[in-house]
Amino acid sequence: MQKMKLLQQNFNLLPYLYERKEIVETALNKAIPRGNPAFIYDSMRYSLSAGGKRIRPILCLASCELAGGTLEMALPTACALEMIHTMSLIHDDLPAMDNDSYRRGKPTNHIIYGEDLAILAGDALLAYAFEFIATQTKNVPPELVVKVIAELAHSVTTSGLVGGQIIDLSSEGKSDTTLETLNFIHIHKTGALLEAAVISGALLAGVKEKDMNRFLGYAQNIGLAFQIIDDVLDIISTEENLGKSVGKDLKTQKATYPSFWGIDESIKQAKLLVEEAKEEILYFDDKAAALLAIADFIVNRNN
Amino acid sequence: MQKMKLLQQNFNLLPYLYERKEIVETALNKAIPRGNPAFIYDSMRYSLSAGGKRIRPILCLASCELAGGTLEMALPTACALEMIHTMSLIHDDLPAMDNDSYRRGKPTNHIIYGEDLAILAGDALLAYAFEFIATQTKNVPPELVVKVIAELAHSVTTSGLVGGQIIDLSSEGKSDTTLETLNFIHIHKTGALLEAAVISGALLAGVKEKDMNRFLGYAQNIGLAFQIIDDVLDIISTEENLGKSVGKDLKTQKATYPSFWGIDESIKQAKLLVEEAKEEILYFDDKAAALLAIADFIVNRNN
Repeated sequence: MQKMKLLQQNFNLLPYLYERKEIVETALNKAIPRGNPAFIYDSMRYSLSAGGKRIRPILCLASCELAGGTLEMALPTACALEMIHTMSLIHDDLPAMDNDSYRRGKPTNHIIYGEDLAILAGDALLAYAFEFIATQTKNVPPELVVKVIAELAHSVTTSGLVGGQIIDLSSEGKSDTTLETLNFIHIHKTGALLEAAVISGALLAGVKEKDMNRFLGYAQNIGLAFQIIDDVLDIISTEENLGKSVGKDLKTQKATYPSFWGIDESIKQAKLLVEEAKEEILYFDDKAAALLAIADFIVNRNN
Repeated sequence: MQKMKLLQQNFNLLPYLYERKEIVETALNKAIPRGNPAFIYDSMRYSLSAGGKRIRPILCLASCELAGGTLEMALPTACALEMIHTMSLIHDDLPAMDNDSYRRGKPTNHIIYGEDLAILAGDALLAYAFEFIATQTKNVPPELVVKVIAELAHSVTTSGLVGGQIIDLSSEGKSDTTLETLNFIHIHKTGALLEAAVISGALLAGVKEKDMNRFLGYAQNIGLAFQIIDDVLDIISTEENLGKSVGKDLKTQKATYPSFWGIDESIKQAKLLVEEAKEEILYFDDKAAALLAIADFIVNRNN
């Protein structure tokens, strides 16, 4: 614990997050420029530029640097992660799914562009994510690019986002959802892409086989902590602060971590997971400072 | 022309198509086995196993062999092409899009599984296509696998399927659609993935740079011919024969090639395109027999 404190005390997280967010958003803006047919590009750019913490791309960049790589090596994959995340938000918000009309502080994509464009914008973002990694990644051996594509794609399929969303939809309104099912939902729906962010960054840098488990342990622990805090924020935060509908879980009688544990215990559990995440990467000494600070940020954030 | 006839006369297309279809369907059935959560796997498998000509995978396999590669090298990409094609059918059929309830002789995916599962099954198939290429392609240099992924992904984005569908949706019911717009729609909506099928097969085999244009010329010509014949079949075929709703273009006042040229001239134009396609690959002599026969099949088919 003493070592951890020493490593972290010289790391200033907020300017770091701000700078990385800027790098990612500049790259995303260039990645999908305005084009023809205009309204589909507008629809994609609308959701992609709607903000958010950009936590997935930032994790990917940090993980690549920790494993000895450069920002440039990871930037295309970082952008792809945000394209995939944005696709999943657009599709999850559709009337046939969660039927949400407010997200990241703005009306959801289908409210502005219609359901047809929202579906197609998601499809295009998903495909474009893979095209972008494949065509834009420089100075990385192609066999590692192939692995990164496999990792990200896997996190979208039934083994990831889609699998989690399916069980989430089928659990809504049920009062008998178990903690096991709740874990399944979030390990797939939130955890898989966060894990892919960390793992892909390490892969791009050519991480040593023996070190990969540390990245994996870090990723899995922060992934679950992230979702626990999301559930807590849905109860205690304001719509203005969160930029999306709040109290929705209660209204839809959705099982959440606070519904099992209460708010205080949920926060405690999230903090324990974050400590475990940090333990996994202490081995890397001062190079781990950014990922250590990001782990803390995940439980201390207010949106 | 004499050379073409000689090359083709010894090639027996129907058993070839039947055998290739079997190879592809067996591989697809193994690629996405039954799994948990069951209904999402069922939904994906329902549309993936609904049949169809499997023309995209067959083109990919044939193109790979023509360029000197093996069936095994191209089979994962061939499967991925069918997953992408199936995804596009599932999403295009949704109520918010073309609102079709009958496809490949069966009720469409959302009719059976609901809109939410249909959207998610499409998303999972799209992501799985890239995972499948990345993890299953053997004996191909990874830099070529990366190129193939870029090619397939590009054919889905606004530069391909999505771009075509957008303009198609926005042209529906308009009486002033130009031939230029109709070409745009089909070059993107149908042509791009057929082109990706041919090009990816050639890429996997390590096609020589100087030969690539021949594959491209072949692909672009058969792509447009394919769509012209689709439009013709929508008018002259029966629902039973075609396995999907017929006469829909007329009902929705959609611009089609026959609406510009009439049926006879449309068939003539398609045949001209197919002849041009065949000219492009005559250079490969007897190795081109399969692709020559497939080109003819595209205009002579009745479904």
